[in-house]
Amino acid sequence: MSRSGLRVGVAGATGAVGAELLRLLAEREVPVASLRALASRRSAGSTVQFGGADVIVEELSDAALRDLDLVFFSCGGERSRRFAPVAVRNGAVVVDNSSAFRLDEGVPLVIPEVNPGSIEQHSGIVAVPNCTTIVFLMAVAPLHREAGLVRAVVSTYQAASGAGASALREYEAQVRAQADGLPLVSDVFSRVLHGNVIPHIDAFRDDGWTNEEYKLLDESRKILGDEGLGVAATCVRVPVARAHAVSAALEFTAPLSPERAREILRATPGVVVLDGGDPPDYPTPLDVSGRNEVAVGRIRSDVSRSGGLLLWAVGDQLLKGAAWNAVQIAELLIQRGLL
Amino acid sequence: MSRSGLRVGVAGATGAVGAELLRLLAEREVPVASLRALASRRSAGSTVQFGGADVIVEELSDAALRDLDLVFFSCGGERSRRFAPVAVRNGAVVVDNSSAFRLDEGVPLVIPEVNPGSIEQHSGIVAVPNCTTIVFLMAVAPLHREAGLVRAVVSTYQAASGAGASALREYEAQVRAQADGLPLVSDVFSRVLHGNVIPHIDAFRDDGWTNEEYKLLDESRKILGDEGLGVAATCVRVPVARAHAVSAALEFTAPLSPERAREILRATPGVVVLDGGDPPDYPTPLDVSGRNEVAVGRIRSDVSRSGGLLLWAVGDQLLKGAAWNAVQIAELLIQRGLL
Repeated sequence: MSRSGLRVGVAGATGAVGAELLRLLAEREVPVASLRALASRRSAGSTVQFGGADVIVEELSDAALRDLDLVFFSCGGERSRRFAPVAVRNGAVVVDNSSAFRLDEGVPLVIPEVNPGSIEQHSGIVAVPNCTTIVFLMAVAPLHREAGLVRAVVSTYQAASGAGASALREYEAQVRAQADGLPLVSDVFSRVLHGNVIPHIDAFRDDGWTNEEYKLLDESRKILGDEGLGVAATCVRVPVARAHAVSAALEFTAPLSPERAREILRATPGVVVLDGGDPPDYPTPLDVSGRNEVAVGRIRSDVSRSGGLLLWAVGDQLLKGAAWNAVQIAELLIQRGLL
Repeated sequence: MSRSGLRVGVAGATGAVGAELLRLLAEREVPVASLRALASRRSAGSTVQFGGADVIVEELSDAALRDLDLVFFSCGGERSRRFAPVAVRNGAVVVDNSSAFRLDEGVPLVIPEVNPGSIEQHSGIVAVPNCTTIVFLMAVAPLHREAGLVRAVVSTYQAASGAGASALREYEAQVRAQADGLPLVSDVFSRVLHGNVIPHIDAFRDDGWTNEEYKLLDESRKILGDEGLGVAATCVRVPVARAHAVSAALEFTAPLSPERAREILRATPGVVVLDGGDPPDYPTPLDVSGRNEVAVGRIRSDVSRSGGLLLWAVGDQLLKGAAWNAVQIAELLIQRGLL
């Protein structure tokens, strides 16, 4: 890092996560000397906002990845796979929001509140976990440290914008069509999402699981450093604009009471507990949209398994599930002198 | 039952379930000699349709419950508790859609495909299980018979109309308000449902579970006749007009393969399997709305527990979850000469 700050690139600057990244970068303590906004050829020439100024978008290319210290990638696995190694060869550190490198050895998969130390091993690329994995582990990792998580059964309620800006637009168009009595058209999603829920996120594998469900399993194992951890996942798209929710049944080696779990989570940075009381409190996606924290509620004993715990966690997947976690990684790289 | 057919009453004739009951009764093989439509004082004097004819709605009262052979109740637990015993004393058999008597000894809690024999023990009242319990057990009871269910972890995706016609209207008004850029008002639900999911159905208990969640546990135990069965339930309202979905992780005493589970479910009356293939098939609430069957998909191994199974079941809670199950109970009473 030069004395004047970092030369930062954002690949995918025109997307939903890219917009949040630019906003957070301007607000936070990442010292940005210069900002290069990169996107597909289609978006090149358009402008994005950074700290009150217009930045002209350039096409993502090998040449555009020269002379940068830090590059955020939020434009899909294929482009990350193609261009992130170029940025690294040119001397930048890459913070990658895609799934391209997450399970690669030598690529730290980092939630700064959960496994900050793993970032030391980076060799140019640091991966941001899947948005659902982040929401899940922000709530569960602190409990794992206390009582030893053995198995989790997780069902998700994932927002439309998790599938990208075009998916969100499709859902919003369906809402207007419904109100106007017009036919509801689906193209991004396999079914109409408005007034529906769809148990299908990412591609199916031969065993009937989806990639999204395996991400929750594989990434949780890597982040918690426990290859024996069991995660039974069912990932479901719901007609929500933004913020993912997860319902989880947790089994530990040591019993964990709801009271103790609440105490632990209340003391966890980045987590807020909204639970119980009269009228009863609990987080919903609308409550959490636009917030950096993951909110946890419905913490209670699993009457079907002694010492087990049920809970409900909600987080804005564009923020803590993507852009905010990426900016936190950048701050961690700076703090530890790894840039 | 007289030679000319049954004198039938429908209490709650103007509600969402009542409308479906009247439609199904007219279509099905319940021989109806006369039909009395009953509702609150507010609705008395209005008309409902039965088999193409107008029926004038009378106020539900002790007097209105005389000279009936069979009375369906779909107007809430309080009215069932008050009036069902009157109907029974007057010689009718009651099929009750409320939760008032479900767990009472001597009241059979019947899903005709699952536990038809239990109906023999009735002493005037037969209870229809909670809609979510029905959707869950239609998929799970056949597997339980094969492999012995020990524990289920269930997260639900429940439709707005499960909370009644006014709840559905509130959700639909929110959709229109969203499209018109107006504020979204919630009154029936604790939060705005459009664009949101709400982990709160029915009242909370001191231990942080809701009544709805305990219904799934307690009713499943009663219907399957296994007080040791464990059900970890999280019940969530989703912005869907109609049809409930459940995501379930099932643990059995004997291992059960997805292939065998599919084979069993394909042979189960009232169940359709929509699973796998290319493009991948699975049921969603929009697919199942208006159908009497419960649809099951996403049947796969639980990689976190040897021999365990994950699945996804969807059913129209106004039909199989309420009106259709009630009419099936009436048909079963007739078949077995119990009326």
